[in-house]
Amino acid sequence: MGELSEGLTQVLIPVAALIGIGFALLQWFLVSKVRVSAVADYNGRDNGHKSSLLGDAELETGVRVPEVTAKCAEIQHAISVGATSFLFTEYRYLTIFMGVFGVIIFLFLGSVKGFSTKSEPCTYNEGNLCKPALANAVFSTIAFLLGALTSVLSGFLGMKIATYANARTTLEARKGIGKAFVIAFRSGAVMGFLLAANGLLVLYVAINLFKLYYGDDWEGLYESITGYGLGGSSMALFGRVGGGIYTKAADVGADLVGKVEQNIPEDDPRNPAVIADNVGDNVGDIAGMGSDLFGSYAESSCAALFVASISSFGLNHDYTAMSYPLIISSMGIVICMITTFFATDIFEIKYENQIEPSLKRQLLISTVLMTVGIAIVSFFALPSEFTLYNFGGSKVVKNWHLFFCVAIGLWAGLVIGYITEYFTSNAYSPVQDVADSCRTGAATNVIFGLALGYKSVIIPIFAIAVAIYVSFSLAAMYGIAVAALGMLSTIATGLAIDAYGPISDNAGGIAEMAGLRHEIRERTDALDAAGNTTAAIGKGFAIGSAALVSLALFGAYVSRAGIKTVNVMTPKVFIGLIVGAMLPYWFSAMTMKSVGSAALKMVEEVRRQFNTIPGLLEGTGKPDYANCVKISTDASLKEMIPPGALVLLAPLIAGTLFGVETLAGVLAGSLVSGVQVAISASNTGGAWDNAKKYIEAGITEHAVSLGPKGSDAHKAAVIGDTVGDPLKDTSGPSLNILIKLMAVESLVFAPFFAAHGGLIFKLF
Amino acid sequence: MGELSEGLTQVLIPVAALIGIGFALLQWFLVSKVRVSAVADYNGRDNGHKSSLLGDAELETGVRVPEVTAKCAEIQHAISVGATSFLFTEYRYLTIFMGVFGVIIFLFLGSVKGFSTKSEPCTYNEGNLCKPALANAVFSTIAFLLGALTSVLSGFLGMKIATYANARTTLEARKGIGKAFVIAFRSGAVMGFLLAANGLLVLYVAINLFKLYYGDDWEGLYESITGYGLGGSSMALFGRVGGGIYTKAADVGADLVGKVEQNIPEDDPRNPAVIADNVGDNVGDIAGMGSDLFGSYAESSCAALFVASISSFGLNHDYTAMSYPLIISSMGIVICMITTFFATDIFEIKYENQIEPSLKRQLLISTVLMTVGIAIVSFFALPSEFTLYNFGGSKVVKNWHLFFCVAIGLWAGLVIGYITEYFTSNAYSPVQDVADSCRTGAATNVIFGLALGYKSVIIPIFAIAVAIYVSFSLAAMYGIAVAALGMLSTIATGLAIDAYGPISDNAGGIAEMAGLRHEIRERTDALDAAGNTTAAIGKGFAIGSAALVSLALFGAYVSRAGIKTVNVMTPKVFIGLIVGAMLPYWFSAMTMKSVGSAALKMVEEVRRQFNTIPGLLEGTGKPDYANCVKISTDASLKEMIPPGALVLLAPLIAGTLFGVETLAGVLAGSLVSGVQVAISASNTGGAWDNAKKYIEAGITEHAVSLGPKGSDAHKAAVIGDTVGDPLKDTSGPSLNILIKLMAVESLVFAPFFAAHGGLIFKLF
Repeated sequence: MGELSEGLTQVLIPVAALIGIGFALLQWFLVSKVRVSAVADYNGRDNGHKSSLLGDAELETGVRVPEVTAKCAEIQHAISVGATSFLFTEYRYLTIFMGVFGVIIFLFLGSVKGFSTKSEPCTYNEGNLCKPALANAVFSTIAFLLGALTSVLSGFLGMKIATYANARTTLEARKGIGKAFVIAFRSGAVMGFLLAANGLLVLYVAINLFKLYYGDDWEGLYESITGYGLGGSSMALFGRVGGGIYTKAADVGADLVGKVEQNIPEDDPRNPAVIADNVGDNVGDIAGMGSDLFGSYAESSCAALFVASISSFGLNHDYTAMSYPLIISSMGIVICMITTFFATDIFEIKYENQIEPSLKRQLLISTVLMTVGIAIVSFFALPSEFTLYNFGGSKVVKNWHLFFCVAIGLWAGLVIGYITEYFTSNAYSPVQDVADSCRTGAATNVIFGLALGYKSVIIPIFAIAVAIYVSFSLAAMYGIAVAALGMLSTIATGLAIDAYGPISDNAGGIAEMAGLRHEIRERTDALDAAGNTTAAIGKGFAIGSAALVSLALFGAYVSRAGIKTVNVMTPKVFIGLIVGAMLPYWFSAMTMKSVGSAALKMVEEVRRQFNTIPGLLEGTGKPDYANCVKISTDASLKEMIPPGALVLLAPLIAGTLFGVETLAGVLAGSLVSGVQVAISASNTGGAWDNAKKYIEAGITEHAVSLGPKGSDAHKAAVIGDTVGDPLKDTSGPSLNILIKLMAVESLVFAPFFAAHGGLIFKLF
Repeated sequence: MGELSEGLTQVLIPVAALIGIGFALLQWFLVSKVRVSAVADYNGRDNGHKSSLLGDAELETGVRVPEVTAKCAEIQHAISVGATSFLFTEYRYLTIFMGVFGVIIFLFLGSVKGFSTKSEPCTYNEGNLCKPALANAVFSTIAFLLGALTSVLSGFLGMKIATYANARTTLEARKGIGKAFVIAFRSGAVMGFLLAANGLLVLYVAINLFKLYYGDDWEGLYESITGYGLGGSSMALFGRVGGGIYTKAADVGADLVGKVEQNIPEDDPRNPAVIADNVGDNVGDIAGMGSDLFGSYAESSCAALFVASISSFGLNHDYTAMSYPLIISSMGIVICMITTFFATDIFEIKYENQIEPSLKRQLLISTVLMTVGIAIVSFFALPSEFTLYNFGGSKVVKNWHLFFCVAIGLWAGLVIGYITEYFTSNAYSPVQDVADSCRTGAATNVIFGLALGYKSVIIPIFAIAVAIYVSFSLAAMYGIAVAALGMLSTIATGLAIDAYGPISDNAGGIAEMAGLRHEIRERTDALDAAGNTTAAIGKGFAIGSAALVSLALFGAYVSRAGIKTVNVMTPKVFIGLIVGAMLPYWFSAMTMKSVGSAALKMVEEVRRQFNTIPGLLEGTGKPDYANCVKISTDASLKEMIPPGALVLLAPLIAGTLFGVETLAGVLAGSLVSGVQVAISASNTGGAWDNAKKYIEAGITEHAVSLGPKGSDAHKAAVIGDTVGDPLKDTSGPSLNILIKLMAVESLVFAPFFAAHGGLIFKLF
């Protein structure tokens, strides 16, 4: 077939990545044209600079326009400073972790052949010599550090953009809902494209640099590259968990005292926890989500590359075919660029009820276009027939088989996205039923919400099962890996939609705190309600792709650990399976309890401030925001360690003590059980949030009969919303990382477990 | 070794069963000595008969003693009539189901060899001729019907005893807490012994009758006997789900209007739903639990017998060794009889805080004694060495290996029981923490409660894993089956403890409704609080044993379907695994939503009565109890069908369309996922209930600071309790049956799936 030449491939991938970065910068430039104030531009906080705002003055009906805008700038600055300071503190902890874990990787992998520097016969590429195990230890450690750094960078950049965009969205909302939407969406796009392009570029560069040492030993090269995925995911774990605890401790704490006890609105500036709450959106939903999806992307690429390297692509040194996963991602960037124009330039939002359909349309457009893109890539980057490694055997596969694998992953993602929207948007009956159950109080609300979450699992699981069956049957483990890549190929659009949510949430908070007029708050609320749904969609993607990625990694682990079959009907595997299925519960128990405890501390602090600061409730006293920020920071950093340790230690303990088969059982068990817990937790939380918003907005007759704010039904809805907070923003989305991280960690450590694992069984 | 002769075995088993039945009748006689009134003795409702109560008059301080006691009798009668009428209505539906499903079994199994009447070569006993597949179809259907009838009978008898004992416990509470405890415990024992003995006897008789036809074809005999387990479990499913929806619709409905809106106490006779609520305890917790545990018992026996029949026991026609499972159960009945004396005669309860330790002690005593019993049985009933079937191969096993298998199941049950107590009793910190979180409202209560449930899964899963590993390694699938039997060997004691709970709950309700003095209500409340914990322990046992039973059945299914390995790393198995893990969520979504909807209907009816019946709240008007009973009945019968259909159809669809491997995946997935959901749901609910009771009782300083009844913290606790109702009494405990029933159904239909299954894959 018309396979691309190696040289062209070598050019196309970095060019696509650079174009993506350029496009992100262009979007950033467009967002920056909305002027906030000198403060937000980090040129000092001198009031004199604020004159730049006067140009917009005619758009504001009130008389205190410059003050209001300056207020926005001030709040934005506070949020940005809070988020930056939290992330830097978090990164200090993570640096220590990276160092320690890097040493562990090096020692464990180095010990496989007793730190010997001699070359060894290859495992798969028979008859050839491969680099020593010690080299794998060194390069795996380097790849791990690279992945960790890229992940941290992804989260940090996302946060910077979001805190840059939030006040701009608020101010743009004065011009109308359409303008505000475009700003929020562009800002999301900045993050989406930077992440996608950056992840691709670093991986590409790393492979090429590693090649300088490995030369023709692709087996060793791509084995050590898997460390990149491990680094990405382990940072994502702490980002998600730490950020999740931070944001929900602040949110729950702020709500319990502010909304419930003091009866002041959400995001009221008198609430001492309000800045911490808005900071939380940026460090949890933005930075955490960014790291998470980057991790998925890195892992699915690594899993695909590893399997390819021991298949005919790798054995024949067919560079272009080998780079198929990277070319798919390159194509994804281009497709997503085209898709972006539909939201920002082609269609225009005029009414509030157009927002959600518009975001859904973006998903659909990118999916349809990408299907064509995949066909093109599969045609030009692959030989028409090749063999793939399949658990000791091999499988003959045609290029159009791989097209189906990638495409089915992509479309499964769309199905998951749409179903998630159906179950979490207040435009449909599930959320409306939950809202209706608030009539009889909080208890029925919680019961109906939990039932909704359970129910929302059904179709996504069938979608994942179909994707797995088709891709697994067509192209074994490689098929699963590229199906995951397919689901993530439109990651730039997915992330744009996803980041849009917390940005709008922040924009609403700033509007409230800055005292903008009611109409503007309504617009940002409409943006935010759609944002709740897109956040749930984003989580759906994250979970769906995590399931596929984990399975691909699991398959790679099984291959690398030299396991012939993972037979459920053996005691070693079965106990792994049932204990693995338990781990998501253990993990959730930890994270939920952490949020609960941290929220209690926050409640005490907020109550203390209301009781001791004179004039706080009347608006004459000034709350001590910084102390609340500190409580969230301390709690999240302290509380993220036990769940992190559970996830990181479980595979090490299972593999070292019980051996590779039990560990395989653990991975399968945590995968099939964790997916369900994650999906149901995310959707339950999203539904409760929107049931509350449905009652508050009071758009339909039904909603009016339940409202208004402060009615008994609304109070019941607020309780549901609060329960949902840790489910949807802490434990639920962290579970993706649990299943991915355990799988990639097992893959990286597989040579060690295969050589030295199963101590307990060896003893008896 | 000193193996028992076949003749002695033939005598010992039925004698043990008859002794058990005799002992149950003795306990019933002792309970009956507490005279309630002519009404409760079903001799008509003539007031003249009530003079018999006057003998107790001096024990009551009030002046209206005869009236109060007559009131108790009247309420008892109403509850008994309500429960009986519900069960009869339910059984009418179930009769239709039994008929239809019996025909399905006959047709599916008959079609395996095209309804041929010719004898066939045996599958396992090579070189011999076995009875035709058509005979298996006929006898499996008969065994199914027998199992179904026994299950229904078990539930019905339990209900009769419980509604006979409730008012007697109330009246005995006038004499002191110790007397009341003994009555409640004896009544529980009646149910426990009747069930255990009856289940054993019917199975024994069925085997001997089937033998008249099968003769030396033990393979066919014990294959068709598995229908007994299927019958038991399918009735249990409807009993649990129907009863669970009934009881919780009434409970939630009664609480939401009575406690929350009208501010009247629990079990207040002015509440129209109060009779339905008390009826619910008997049809859900008693009849449902009875059927459920009978099902587990029948299934583990059948699984063990089936595996034994294709091992050396069966091939050599060693009757005594073959009957090992039945002899273990016989020994269990004797041990439990001895154990009962400790509670009723040796130790005496003087203070309220002795109740829970005393019940725990019963568990410990029965476990210790039974360990000796198992050793004796293993020594006298087994050859010193034998071979067991092990997935196509065989495994040499010694008699003391089996001792360890049974004993580890038994002790794992004790561990699960104790851990469950720790997480659900308000004597320990977990429940106290949950109660404390009510300080900040219902939301934190729900968050902490959910986290507690998740956390409570950890140790039981490890206990189950260890039991599985040891018994699986020592004696393959037979080991798992007898480990399950070990856990259930003390079923008579377990059921006694378990039935004690709803009886005490009812006793409290009757005390409140009959207007007995405060002191007596306090005593019944103390009995009831311990009952919440024992109910949770009972559910823990039910779930733990269900996990082992399902695995044993799963193993038997795999053997019978001729599957070589259940390899997770094949697409067919993996999609089964992930979809199977989803089924408990689907099922829970249905049952929880059902409870929610039925409760809403109940709320409307109770509100209607309060609004339209004049003087109802003042106590001058009479509520229409019957209408509430009707609502619960109609709702539960209608709503039990979809979840029942899901459980029964899932294996049929998976097996027929996708084949035996996918079905194996489904079974493994639903097992490892369902266990977690079930344990966490039961314990969360139990903890919320006791957190509420902890605040109400106000025994410690901490509890006083949260109370009293009606405080904000108490209101938050009531919301948690209400959320927990469907979790702990409907969806949680029904999940055991889901996993067991799918496994036993697959086992019964295995020959059909093996012959004709996998249609979809055959098409493509």
